[in-house]
Amino acid sequence: MHSFEFHNPTRVIFGRGTVPQVGAAIAREGVHTLLLIGGEGSIRENGVYQAVVQSLSAAGITATEAWGVRPNPELTLARELVHVAQEHQVEGVLAIGGGSVIDTAKCVAAGVYVDDLWSCFERTCRIERALPIFAVLTISASGSEMDQWAVLTQSDQHRKWAISSPVLYPRVAIVDPSVQTSLPWRQTVNGAIAVLSHIMASYLVGTFEETTLALDEGLMRTVVKMVERLQADHADYGARANLAWAATLAMNGLISAGIDDSDWSAHSIESAMSALHPDVAHGAGMAVILPVWMAYVRESNPGQFQRWAKTIWDAETVEEGIMAMKAAFQRWGAPSTLSDIGIGAGELRDIAFNALAEGPIGKLRVLTVRDVVELLKLAL
Amino acid sequence: MHSFEFHNPTRVIFGRGTVPQVGAAIAREGVHTLLLIGGEGSIRENGVYQAVVQSLSAAGITATEAWGVRPNPELTLARELVHVAQEHQVEGVLAIGGGSVIDTAKCVAAGVYVDDLWSCFERTCRIERALPIFAVLTISASGSEMDQWAVLTQSDQHRKWAISSPVLYPRVAIVDPSVQTSLPWRQTVNGAIAVLSHIMASYLVGTFEETTLALDEGLMRTVVKMVERLQADHADYGARANLAWAATLAMNGLISAGIDDSDWSAHSIESAMSALHPDVAHGAGMAVILPVWMAYVRESNPGQFQRWAKTIWDAETVEEGIMAMKAAFQRWGAPSTLSDIGIGAGELRDIAFNALAEGPIGKLRVLTVRDVVELLKLAL
Repeated sequence: MHSFEFHNPTRVIFGRGTVPQVGAAIAREGVHTLLLIGGEGSIRENGVYQAVVQSLSAAGITATEAWGVRPNPELTLARELVHVAQEHQVEGVLAIGGGSVIDTAKCVAAGVYVDDLWSCFERTCRIERALPIFAVLTISASGSEMDQWAVLTQSDQHRKWAISSPVLYPRVAIVDPSVQTSLPWRQTVNGAIAVLSHIMASYLVGTFEETTLALDEGLMRTVVKMVERLQADHADYGARANLAWAATLAMNGLISAGIDDSDWSAHSIESAMSALHPDVAHGAGMAVILPVWMAYVRESNPGQFQRWAKTIWDAETVEEGIMAMKAAFQRWGAPSTLSDIGIGAGELRDIAFNALAEGPIGKLRVLTVRDVVELLKLAL
Repeated sequence: MHSFEFHNPTRVIFGRGTVPQVGAAIAREGVHTLLLIGGEGSIRENGVYQAVVQSLSAAGITATEAWGVRPNPELTLARELVHVAQEHQVEGVLAIGGGSVIDTAKCVAAGVYVDDLWSCFERTCRIERALPIFAVLTISASGSEMDQWAVLTQSDQHRKWAISSPVLYPRVAIVDPSVQTSLPWRQTVNGAIAVLSHIMASYLVGTFEETTLALDEGLMRTVVKMVERLQADHADYGARANLAWAATLAMNGLISAGIDDSDWSAHSIESAMSALHPDVAHGAGMAVILPVWMAYVRESNPGQFQRWAKTIWDAETVEEGIMAMKAAFQRWGAPSTLSDIGIGAGELRDIAFNALAEGPIGKLRVLTVRDVVELLKLAL
């Protein structure tokens, strides 16, 4: 058990019908003017937008609206919204959406205090202040509603990079799982696979952090069970709610407490892929990458991979565990090869170079460009 | 999955050698004068006190010291310390010890802002403010280092009651498991049993809060495993650390998220017992009460009790599960009958009346005085 610090100040308001609490929760934080950030408009169709607007109005909060955040959100839009936030002198930002919208809101919240937002991604500036951040979650996947991370894509240079700072924890996150009932099945599955991949980034590096590993195993098994239940009945609120809470916990710091670093190299490869193919959702990319990445790095921590196979998939060997995971992903309708997500053999070197653009990747095993190409070949 | 709010703002600094971080962590919160509260002096023997004093001094923090908190801490002492805190106009309180010391510190922190501290226990005043609270933990058991609860005993009336408020979360808690290596074995075991009892208060009420139940199971299994490891080797740091982190997580709100209330009636009975017998440690009392309470209320939620037996003890029936738990407690050296802790048949009615003094108890099954007597008879 390595030393660690755990401090997660986000207030999560969780449950069916909690969206109308948003106005009062924001007012309690002393914020009365907001930049409200949305995606492509689905929240107008499922009633979430109307409930938020009514709640803000009842709490005396004025909101300037900004729409159009897309999956794999772009630096360009975040920069524009920083100007809007500055122009309207808003006191806070409110994201209504999934990880892309929340991450954009976080970047806006920090962006108003720095000269150049992208320099924070390049590590030449530190994020020390941010406007108060609020979130109404509509897709459980990224865990951004209760974490200190944000990911943006700089599309000119095909960079999909991340920032992290304690000031990026949302003050309040509303998680009403019932609003996710209308999600396309594909998005539910992508979300669940993203959650599994977040937990595995820490879990597979583990050794004797028994408390944390037991939590990780509980979360992973629950995610798998809940997806199976939802596949049988998309409207199963209990399954939806448990999946949502597992997704939130998967990025809030618990899953890695005491583990000596995590291994985000599979995520770096997926980010490199989706920076080149912005239409690829994170979970869909991870469904393809996880099995081949695991097969490639498994010898670095064999006991833990064995434990994962046994505990999560009731499998005797690591191979069988990976096969069981792939089979589950396929059963759920996720892609399983690079060609399923429109990526061909000619792009592997570009992806590999892109993945290593920020420096070496890999904790279990440090991966070179050649390694990444070899590993991707297994997924063609 | 019921609706819930999760918000735990405590910063936990965890790991071997973290005690010297206390001064800087307190100064970062803007606190420069403290009331330092200690127990019966064991921290002078294991070096913790010296490390704290040095760290405070290096951070420019002045501390007034107050000693003598005992297990089942008393209102009288807390009241005295409120006066000391007021007289010295301290900006914060620092507990160095286990749950008794931390709970006393919490009561002092809140007590400086109310006319009569005990009226908050009687629910005739609300706790809305408190001085910043800091803790250096020396015994993992109560979870008070990361929760919003405090328990005091009013010994004249044999009342051992609790208060709860969001302002009672410690700002910073230092958890260095290595300082617990020198604890008497009995205290380690009492702590572990207290932790199990905290988790079971929520878990046994559960139904389909799968994510939370999976976390609870992970924590309970880990606690049992770690005690077995520590029994074989008291100096096993990994086991000590995992037990400590499980203890902290067991009261921080996670174990009950989404569960419709918890059942603290076994704790109320134990509190009634130890209010009459202040020498009985909470964990020792719970070792005696838990098995008979479970046997008495199990029919109220049979599926969940069955799941507990199977998952934690690999037992086919609830009886076998309870027997396995009792056997483990005995193997660890915990008491198993009321007479083991010096309580005779003549006291059962007094304990029962005392347990119900605040009103009805029990969520799984509402217990009358007669029920409590019947249940206690099983433990004679």
